[in-house]
Amino acid sequence: FSTLAINQEYIESMQFEVIAQDPKSKARAGKITTPHGEILTPIFMPVGTAGTVKAVHQRELENDIKAQIILGNTYHLYLRPGIELLKKAGGLHRFNGWKRPILTDSGGYQVYSLTENRQITEEGVFFKSHIDGSKHFFTPEKVMDIERAIGADIIMALDECTPYPCDYAYAKQSMEMTHRWLKRCIRRIEETEPLYGYEQTLFPIVQGSVYKDLRQASAEFVAACECDGNAIGGLSVGEPAELMYEMTELVCDLLPKDKPRYLMGVGTPANLLECIALGVDMFDCVMPTRNARNGMLFTTQGIINIRNKKWQEDFSPIDEPLGGYVSTFYSKAYLRHLIMNKEILGAQIASVHNLTFYLWLVNQAREHILAGDFYEWKKQILPIVSQRL
Amino acid sequence: FSTLAINQEYIESMQFEVIAQDPKSKARAGKITTPHGEILTPIFMPVGTAGTVKAVHQRELENDIKAQIILGNTYHLYLRPGIELLKKAGGLHRFNGWKRPILTDSGGYQVYSLTENRQITEEGVFFKSHIDGSKHFFTPEKVMDIERAIGADIIMALDECTPYPCDYAYAKQSMEMTHRWLKRCIRRIEETEPLYGYEQTLFPIVQGSVYKDLRQASAEFVAACECDGNAIGGLSVGEPAELMYEMTELVCDLLPKDKPRYLMGVGTPANLLECIALGVDMFDCVMPTRNARNGMLFTTQGIINIRNKKWQEDFSPIDEPLGGYVSTFYSKAYLRHLIMNKEILGAQIASVHNLTFYLWLVNQAREHILAGDFYEWKKQILPIVSQRL
Ligand SMILES: [Zn+2]
Ligand SMILES: [Zn+2]
Repeated sequence: FSTLAINQEYIESMQFEVIAQDPKSKARAGKITTPHGEILTPIFMPVGTAGTVKAVHQRELENDIKAQIILGNTYHLYLRPGIELLKKAGGLHRFNGWKRPILTDSGGYQVYSLTENRQITEEGVFFKSHIDGSKHFFTPEKVMDIERAIGADIIMALDECTPYPCDYAYAKQSMEMTHRWLKRCIRRIEETEPLYGYEQTLFPIVQGSVYKDLRQASAEFVAACECDGNAIGGLSVGEPAELMYEMTELVCDLLPKDKPRYLMGVGTPANLLECIALGVDMFDCVMPTRNARNGMLFTTQGIINIRNKKWQEDFSPIDEPLGGYVSTFYSKAYLRHLIMNKEILGAQIASVHNLTFYLWLVNQAREHILAGDFYEWKKQILPIVSQRL
Repeated sequence: FSTLAINQEYIESMQFEVIAQDPKSKARAGKITTPHGEILTPIFMPVGTAGTVKAVHQRELENDIKAQIILGNTYHLYLRPGIELLKKAGGLHRFNGWKRPILTDSGGYQVYSLTENRQITEEGVFFKSHIDGSKHFFTPEKVMDIERAIGADIIMALDECTPYPCDYAYAKQSMEMTHRWLKRCIRRIEETEPLYGYEQTLFPIVQGSVYKDLRQASAEFVAACECDGNAIGGLSVGEPAELMYEMTELVCDLLPKDKPRYLMGVGTPANLLECIALGVDMFDCVMPTRNARNGMLFTTQGIINIRNKKWQEDFSPIDEPLGGYVSTFYSKAYLRHLIMNKEILGAQIASVHNLTFYLWLVNQAREHILAGDFYEWKKQILPIVSQRL
């Protein structure tokens, strides 16, 4: 189809609709409409670091995992393949062939992880590439331009993600800078146009570390910006789970009900279920893919470390009840053999399996929210999916 | 289906039928029938080293690549996952889920490559594992027992694969030992039963380095053993291509016409076409998968080094005329990005593509033999598939 057809079909910006609300928790089922199609929430978004969800084919994402939206990392894409190439390709969708929605982070998280090789100022952040040591400078404006060039449907504001623990004074000052950066991001997006004929939606990010008053102030500031969706950042960075849940609940209660809420970088299956119950609609995490490559499997029966000798002679399928090709075709013993011997196919099987499980889990959550029994279902399934087998 | 059903269906040992003969060359089209189904020749067999064709799912082998038979390496499978585990699994087919024919080599080639860590005697070969340095001893009898346990449809005799160059005296003495080992292999197979209810077929291997009289003697010795298929070993080990073709032709002419001929470890697309013309029916080589992981692509238009900067902004499909998912869905620029950045998906795409091309090439050869114009087709396509783009 032609560019004109894309424009006509995709002229609207992102829409969100709450379809059902769980009676005994704050969980809700919704639908996000983007220029690249619909996303049914709650949703988990596989992380496609440098334009590829590691070890997974695009058709496996679509047909096996049933991913509805994937992430791209601005930091990685900016360094490789680079923004000029992505522009020539016509954006990330055209470059990697993924036709459904994409969300890009701001690159901030990766830059701050370069602890010795970055310096944060009011204007922006200097950093040295982890690849070749080359020097770069990200400002809120520059990151918006980069995210325009990548062309994701949902783009994240540049924030500072504070570490844990973080003293109150630093957390407050950092949050305030994040707010000023947010205003600059919003202005830049208002001043510029998308490059590929469809709208992009900016999500601001709530910060404030583990301090209730800061989280409240940040949530109120972010809510007042009236963006079409909002994110919670700076959690799942080492703090106790209970503290993460407390902050998530506090922030969810302050963010508008009629906008999707995205909890960044979370988490385990248990984290997802608990945070869905607190009103979170969107999640992302490298855990299902990164841990897969190390042999940790999330299954309908619990968590498996496939490197453990107990699986050596277990010729049963990886996860029969989950269904799907990799989880029912390959045995635990075979997958163990592949992972122990660092065979690429092991990473492929485990990655597709874990992502299939994560998408199954959020889809099950959605079904139970729609059926009105999410709370009871969560209580029953949480100990099962959290147990170590 | 039950074990009984397998026994009834698969009671016959391997069959071979020549279906057509090219009028202007020695190329022939045939059909091998094994306990795990039919193989249409000439055929290329992807190498599944340790029970996995690296970076390729079993369903991709079947549906995308259209592989008819794959290889397993006895040396690798013996070390990992080990013979006891394979026995418990019920053989390699049950272990890795590949339901079509499998061929196993004897492990000899890998053992001899451990130059400093092996010692050949009349009785057999001592070697130290490349993994943990543990000591092992392979005799012809032991290798037959191991290949029984792996359970491939076609199993190779233990031989000594001489290097190139190799002096005449060593080549002669080595060939004679290979012949004595062959007799011991045949005896062991006659004395033992298959473990999984279907017959296994032993292929002897012609040796003799690049010496015509030795090759002739070895081919005659092997032919006289009256096995159901025969192999040519010790070529493609560094000698000039012309010498390889000369030895292959000499041996093919002496091996029985009514048995399949397998040229081991060969080779490039050009090598395959030339050797099909000399009467070879079966090939294997790690080149399409190993080179894929390094970014070398074999295509219908020629050979591509995807790391070359000239492909950086080429957003056209990898190989549109070849067809199939990976070759038409992903662009050269995207694959280059993945390979340059050592992304696993790059190895996956390139491996599936190269194997799809190899299987397409031998299938095209077969079609043209059946049509009677193989010689003309080969003359036309050889410079195309051999050129560097
Ligand atoms: Zn995470
Ligand atoms: Zn080879």
